[in-house]
Amino acid sequence: MSNDLYAVAAEDFCLIPMGTGEPSVAGYIAECQRILEKSGLKYKMHGYGTNLEGPWSEVTKAIHDCHLAVHAQGTPRIATDIRIGTRTDREITPGTGNEAKVKRVEDILSK
Amino acid sequence: MSNDLYAVAAEDFCLIPMGTGEPSVAGYIAECQRILEKSGLKYKMHGYGTNLEGPWSEVTKAIHDCHLAVHAQGTPRIATDIRIGTRTDREITPGTGNEAKVKRVEDILSK
Amino acid sequence: MSNDLYAVAAEDFCLIPMGTGEPSVAGYIAECQRILEKSGLKYKMHGYGTNLEGPWSEVTKAIHDCHLAVHAQGTPRIATDIRIGTRTDREITPGTGNEAKVKRVEDILSK
Amino acid sequence: MSNDLYAVAAEDFCLIPMGTGEPSVAGYIAECQRILEKSGLKYKMHGYGTNLEGPWSEVTKAIHDCHLAVHAQGTPRIATDIRIGTRTDREITPGTGNEAKVKRVEDILSK
Repeated sequence: MSNDLYAVAAEDFCLIPMGTGEPSVAGYIAECQRILEKSGLKYKMHGYGTNLEGPWSEVTKAIHDCHLAVHAQGTPRIATDIRIGTRTDREITPGTGNEAKVKRVEDILSK
Repeated sequence: MSNDLYAVAAEDFCLIPMGTGEPSVAGYIAECQRILEKSGLKYKMHGYGTNLEGPWSEVTKAIHDCHLAVHAQGTPRIATDIRIGTRTDREITPGTGNEAKVKRVEDILSK
Repeated sequence: MSNDLYAVAAEDFCLIPMGTGEPSVAGYIAECQRILEKSGLKYKMHGYGTNLEGPWSEVTKAIHDCHLAVHAQGTPRIATDIRIGTRTDREITPGTGNEAKVKRVEDILSK
Repeated sequence: MSNDLYAVAAEDFCLIPMGTGEPSVAGYIAECQRILEKSGLKYKMHGYGTNLEGPWSEVTKAIHDCHLAVHAQGTPRIATDIRIGTRTDREITPGTGNEAKVKRVEDILSK
């Protein structure tokens, strides 16, 4: 078992800027997507968060850098909800974890 | 303001069966998708959860029914993480909330 | 199995007001505590959320009413993270679920 | 602004072992408390998770080490929900963040 678990079986986060004076968050989330693009990690935005895959230290660092960037946009406080999963019972090819999970469910439903 | 808030600005949940003796969850998540299909609500599975839209009472009832169904599959314990959002500053056309959020971010990024 | 699962094995929520123009949330969380007090359910605030126990329909209704109250304070948008758990393998005396969980861990640690 | 944000305004996590064949999790959560004790960080268990305070890199590393330890107990898969908050508008004395938040709400309620 590695000392840096591959957190791919499930990583998803939802960042919420606080104290901004406006209910819209699209400008902040767009900035996060730019940070994730630079990280080199695989990511995919959905309607209430962003899927992210990679080694534990890299995915948590990427979210930290999103906080730094959103603070730099003038946000005084940020709350993020993270779902993170690891597994040791199967090898996960980097960048295929979240897609593979959806496919397994779809395969069952199509039977 | 309605007494049943339209929880569409953000609803996402991730259900985790516990004590099943197997790490795979695809069979349980597939059952949840069948329950959501019957609910008539708009939903969309992603790599670490499922987006769901509708009035508060209906989306929380749908997740309750997923618990009932997964218990009926023999699961003794279930833990679910729900992100739920409401807003009163804008009208949301039912079934368009989560998609509209992704589009607003993509529009900013494409500029 | 009841049609209204007793969601006591684990219910915890963290409500975040958005677009308020101030980073402090204490005034909104205090209002939520007043709503929970009126609900008659057992609840307990901690450093990053509030534990809540009761039947599924009642705990989700209580959180809905917190949203209503915080919107009524002038908050245009609210995001809440909920952890909710149910189990069918043991009877849970109403109002003892969360405390019993902490005690079981403490008993193991004190051995 | 530091390059390692002090994640004290809000850090809370709930770790769920999967595929263990038993619904009880107390033995795994006890192991996590031992890991947190060794980390030197301030932490406090509640009915549905554990509050944790410290610099971002240290709190995420502590949760990673909990995953390592619970995998070492024979758990093939783990899912954790993390709530993490940072703020730049106020200095937070290390180890006082979560308690201070509860106190501010209680002060409002006691008026």
